[in-house]
Amino acid sequence: MSPAPAARRPALAITTGEPAGIGPEIAIRAAWALRGDANCILVGDAAFLAMTAGAIDPAIRLSAVSLQALRYSGLPHFGPDRIAVVDVPLAAHVVPGTLDPANGRAVLDILDAAIEGVRAGWFEAIVTAPLQKSTINDAGVPFSGHTEYLAEKTGTPQVVMMLAGSPGNGQPCLRVALATTHLPLKDVPGAITRDGLAKVLDIIDHDLRTRFGIAAPRILVTGLNPHAGENGYLGREEIDVIEPALLAARARGIDAQGPYPADTLFQPKYLKDADCVLAMYHDQGLPVLKHATFGRGVNITLGLPLVRTSVDHGTALDLAARGLGLADCGSMEEAIRAALQMAVASRTH
Amino acid sequence: MSPAPAARRPALAITTGEPAGIGPEIAIRAAWALRGDANCILVGDAAFLAMTAGAIDPAIRLSAVSLQALRYSGLPHFGPDRIAVVDVPLAAHVVPGTLDPANGRAVLDILDAAIEGVRAGWFEAIVTAPLQKSTINDAGVPFSGHTEYLAEKTGTPQVVMMLAGSPGNGQPCLRVALATTHLPLKDVPGAITRDGLAKVLDIIDHDLRTRFGIAAPRILVTGLNPHAGENGYLGREEIDVIEPALLAARARGIDAQGPYPADTLFQPKYLKDADCVLAMYHDQGLPVLKHATFGRGVNITLGLPLVRTSVDHGTALDLAARGLGLADCGSMEEAIRAALQMAVASRTH
Repeated sequence: MSPAPAARRPALAITTGEPAGIGPEIAIRAAWALRGDANCILVGDAAFLAMTAGAIDPAIRLSAVSLQALRYSGLPHFGPDRIAVVDVPLAAHVVPGTLDPANGRAVLDILDAAIEGVRAGWFEAIVTAPLQKSTINDAGVPFSGHTEYLAEKTGTPQVVMMLAGSPGNGQPCLRVALATTHLPLKDVPGAITRDGLAKVLDIIDHDLRTRFGIAAPRILVTGLNPHAGENGYLGREEIDVIEPALLAARARGIDAQGPYPADTLFQPKYLKDADCVLAMYHDQGLPVLKHATFGRGVNITLGLPLVRTSVDHGTALDLAARGLGLADCGSMEEAIRAALQMAVASRTH
Repeated sequence: MSPAPAARRPALAITTGEPAGIGPEIAIRAAWALRGDANCILVGDAAFLAMTAGAIDPAIRLSAVSLQALRYSGLPHFGPDRIAVVDVPLAAHVVPGTLDPANGRAVLDILDAAIEGVRAGWFEAIVTAPLQKSTINDAGVPFSGHTEYLAEKTGTPQVVMMLAGSPGNGQPCLRVALATTHLPLKDVPGAITRDGLAKVLDIIDHDLRTRFGIAAPRILVTGLNPHAGENGYLGREEIDVIEPALLAARARGIDAQGPYPADTLFQPKYLKDADCVLAMYHDQGLPVLKHATFGRGVNITLGLPLVRTSVDHGTALDLAARGLGLADCGSMEEAIRAALQMAVASRTH
């Protein structure tokens, strides 16, 4: 990908996530590594980020701007010799590896600033570093995940979580979307409905066209049960729910085929003819994606009125506790690249 | 692996499975390809197999023996210039690709002959080609799978399904065992119990030692819920069931670690330190195994009083209907190789 001219490069907000995890480090390292390609603006506590950046590499230059200044005069121009930071202060001193609910509210403030910035036109996409759901919950704010929060804050009735990555060795990019996300397994079968699948398929088809520039997206869909229910012997949701939903989607012009057994579908010989797999739930779709992409997968939220990508891993508190320099910022770099491509593709739709 | 001397080569029963599927073809082709390494005895309708073999390659030589003759005088010696067949006649003419419940009973007779042969000492292992559960059920015999049938027929209260294969590119063999197998998804959470996991872990640990010759097996265990329940926020089965089961297993000397999020655990950097992954259910464990092994995975049943391996795919009726020469016998070849190694390792335990 050749970089767009600097003046037209999309500005990407990088939220730095849980401060006690590896988020600040990987955000700084990835933004610095890609400073020639992407116009990354970190969102987080400027003093803490400056201290962290200095410890990573004294050559890294940060320039901070306050949210108030942005509101007053918009995003200033920063050259590719530095990383911009929008300052959203934390409440408490950070001990790497140790969660502190006192900072739970600030993690949400960071997200809110990024959303505000997209609305205000400062940013064309949001890239999120990992946060710790339990810290926010322990701070007294019910919170089930980045994805759900972004949906609520943008008034989006339904979003779709998709992970994407390259398996290497010449295989095409693997994209896996989920019909359900962060639900206890026992609640999954009841959450798969014809109406729900219809909306999920509409969103996938729409966003593959508008955010990825795929003219005629092909979607392969898993069953819910092992062997896709094996003609009803191992469950009836395929017959009662999924097949009718796929029939209806095809009647709307969506190329959605299935339901197929998950362990059959996820073989390269079938995947090569698909732009996206729709899996019914988290652990049916994501282990294979993460295995195949060697920790360089990207989490993408479809259906939002904004472009949002994320790393595909957690806060890695254990690594953060052991010091800087141990975390792999590969997934964050891929998330930034994906956001950049999606932001550019979205301009023409 | 260098072949054992012919006189000591384990005799392997290859059950040919659903006759309208690809089972007969892949059994013949794999047995013929490996005739110099493995002493394979096909079990199925001799006339039908002879006709199929002749259509695959006129050079393939079969020699049939009846079950009655085996019972009378044991397994005769067949040289590596031919494939032996134990004749178990079908009831109806076979139309490739078209299921016929009239042959459902014969598919079970084939399995019964193989089990009888292990008990009688004719065979040291069973390798099974795929069958079609629905045909047997439609023939009026309740049947939930090869694995369950072998357990029942051998009086085994609990077995464990494991898939194994090599991901290539230098990564070690990946082995994935399942705590539950062919259950509708809605029945999975209730089927995960402390006692059940204790038995599953005992079987895995025992068989990795005795059938694979691994002196100190290391087992990684997934959670049931996404993110392994995330400290209880996404389900409590990890806290209430899985963690206590693992604590108890470790107290018995079993190296079982977890529960880990399935999408974290199935990354090469974690897998390299494990001899086996225990996944909680079918579609949590098998998609990644099959994706990683490119259709050359092997299905292994642990806990039985006999060695049993199988292909990791179904009957592929669509391929069978289109004629011979289209099916890939790679998984069957791997299943034969695995059975051979396990039969040899089992002799010393």
